[in-house]
Amino acid sequence: MNPSRRLVLGSLGGLAAAANLPAAAAVASPFGMHQPGIGSHAAGQDHTYFAAFDLAVPKRADLVELFRAWTDASQLLMYGEPTEGDSLEALDASPGRLSLTFGFGPGLFAPGKFGLEASRPAALIDLPRFPGDELDPARTGGDLSVQACAGDPQVAFHAVRQLARLANGAATLRWTQTGYVSRPKPSATPRNLMGFKDGSRNVDTTDPAEMARFVWVGDEGPAWMRGGSYLVIRRIRMALEHWDNTKVPFQEQTMGRTKTDGAPIGGHGEFTTPDFKATDANGNYKIAETSHVRMAAPEMNEGIKILRRPYSYNDGTNVTAERWPPWREGLEYDAGLVFIAYQRDPRTGFVPIFRKMSRMDMLNQFTTHTGGGLFAIPPGITRGSYLGQKLIES
Amino acid sequence: MNPSRRLVLGSLGGLAAAANLPAAAAVASPFGMHQPGIGSHAAGQDHTYFAAFDLAVPKRADLVELFRAWTDASQLLMYGEPTEGDSLEALDASPGRLSLTFGFGPGLFAPGKFGLEASRPAALIDLPRFPGDELDPARTGGDLSVQACAGDPQVAFHAVRQLARLANGAATLRWTQTGYVSRPKPSATPRNLMGFKDGSRNVDTTDPAEMARFVWVGDEGPAWMRGGSYLVIRRIRMALEHWDNTKVPFQEQTMGRTKTDGAPIGGHGEFTTPDFKATDANGNYKIAETSHVRMAAPEMNEGIKILRRPYSYNDGTNVTAERWPPWREGLEYDAGLVFIAYQRDPRTGFVPIFRKMSRMDMLNQFTTHTGGGLFAIPPGITRGSYLGQKLIES
Repeated sequence: MNPSRRLVLGSLGGLAAAANLPAAAAVASPFGMHQPGIGSHAAGQDHTYFAAFDLAVPKRADLVELFRAWTDASQLLMYGEPTEGDSLEALDASPGRLSLTFGFGPGLFAPGKFGLEASRPAALIDLPRFPGDELDPARTGGDLSVQACAGDPQVAFHAVRQLARLANGAATLRWTQTGYVSRPKPSATPRNLMGFKDGSRNVDTTDPAEMARFVWVGDEGPAWMRGGSYLVIRRIRMALEHWDNTKVPFQEQTMGRTKTDGAPIGGHGEFTTPDFKATDANGNYKIAETSHVRMAAPEMNEGIKILRRPYSYNDGTNVTAERWPPWREGLEYDAGLVFIAYQRDPRTGFVPIFRKMSRMDMLNQFTTHTGGGLFAIPPGITRGSYLGQKLIES
Repeated sequence: MNPSRRLVLGSLGGLAAAANLPAAAAVASPFGMHQPGIGSHAAGQDHTYFAAFDLAVPKRADLVELFRAWTDASQLLMYGEPTEGDSLEALDASPGRLSLTFGFGPGLFAPGKFGLEASRPAALIDLPRFPGDELDPARTGGDLSVQACAGDPQVAFHAVRQLARLANGAATLRWTQTGYVSRPKPSATPRNLMGFKDGSRNVDTTDPAEMARFVWVGDEGPAWMRGGSYLVIRRIRMALEHWDNTKVPFQEQTMGRTKTDGAPIGGHGEFTTPDFKATDANGNYKIAETSHVRMAAPEMNEGIKILRRPYSYNDGTNVTAERWPPWREGLEYDAGLVFIAYQRDPRTGFVPIFRKMSRMDMLNQFTTHTGGGLFAIPPGITRGSYLGQKLIES
């Protein structure tokens, strides 16, 4: 730990009281029961920069040093204070809405590395291969993850850039992904790049009972994970040129919702509970059997919900080959969804839901999963402690 | 021209008066002396999606059809109205600040194509190769360009996506680039990814005399270009890891400005005119001979200014080889600057300025130009006319 950084941290309480800093309560903090950026979020956090790191050090002491440095730096960053040697590109921007969420990948628990193999949670599985997966190893996995969310893309990138620099070689970037949310006026469910509202039936983050049931790890997990969660991230490329050449009624059948107002087929208004039993004159389900909303619905998944926090991504254009007819190889948009979901246990969350969807969802003909990972998200840090301390001392 | 689209356009005057649409004066329009997105801009347009297209049709009539469709669609898009077959992902977003700026590349004037070779402006040169250029053909050139600027990245992308679809094969995407500006609080010169303020000495877009002198094509150009401009775009990758490992005093010498407040070295405050003659005790220029501000200054370039409208870009990370010591090959940020400059004539604007800079600017050891192009930006469209009509009938 660098002494001057310690010094700055020691005086943060005083700094926060000064006129040019937001009150402590108004900004995110690494301390508390849960990490920021999971339950408390969304409003104004229109941009993300996600980064997966590989560990490049052999010893547990290096790990502790890294986690201490990141803990201190993340507090400074979330307060909008420059870190030591800061590159300053976020100096004039509004830091208020920055949150940093750290995660641990399976590599951290690898046998013979840091002596943490016995602490690997059973829920931190190696994700199975799903039908249709085209995961690029260069965009998949990682020993550590950091999700930065902010109102300004430069603030999010700035935060990860400082963490990467302060890692000082102990952790090196493995892959990164930018994302954004289009902000609806004045407040509504955002639309994804397919033009449909995304998140109408999400977990209610303001309901502690729902969060406890579906998102936060409870007594079933190891002590160091209680109050934590599990993050599944998938980079999902959308065949937008193909999608744009389909008719809206077909898109609505595929999705199971109307496009303009987002109502479930046969329902009135976006927040109507879908009627999955309703049939048309021919006896077919109004909400098609392989439609996206039916596949994803808790009613069709033993009541399971996962907290989605999706961003769109737009990496321009590049040459690709389409997976479905009309097969075509050429320059296409490299744009789509950064699917991000938090859950209490992926074995009862993402995995069974997506195992079914990956085989049957009509939407699959327009989507390709090209990268991602699963990370254990430890709980919030106890004040005076550092990221991962409970794990390391477990 | 599709009759239903015509119909919609015909009624736009009435629509604009309706409560749910901004007044005509409040939104950008393709009509007027100049295209939108050049002089009138900036406030709130924090995102860009730039697209270069190749023409895929042989006949002038197809070109007219394309330009008519784009003219009609661009008016709808800037009014926030859906185009025919719209993909709707911007339906709930605020369209108000969208501007679309169209350009013509050298390919439009190729001999034996559309019969326009005699109309190619002398100023629309083939850009020379500059020292250090590493232009990727897959990110360079194009027959047509569209720059969409908006307050929401989805609105900018949406606009280009509709234009690409409505081109109906007559023009196909060649390359694209997203960009953003970090919005300073409450209003200040934005910082680029090097952490320095960028644009302190830009052309004053509110001064018609300066715009006429440096930006708008006058009587020296062909009649169809009067009131137009020339766009130079360069995708400039920054070696941020390398930059972040240098000390601030070195960075300030390289730039010729202080980092925190952006003052020229030896001056007080960002908007002080740099004193290029001031020397230190050893007789060396305070603002180093090969510093970036000296290289770019009008005082060192026969009074020439170009209107810069830069965006940062962030395409994540990929494997690259550094150009300068410490040489390293590995995963690095693919982030930097979308340099965009408008000027009356590139032969007296970008070309001589950058010819010198590309050889001597100290900043070059941290930057690599990886793509770009030069496009003739025709003037605003006469109402009742279409994009490029004056050129095609010239």
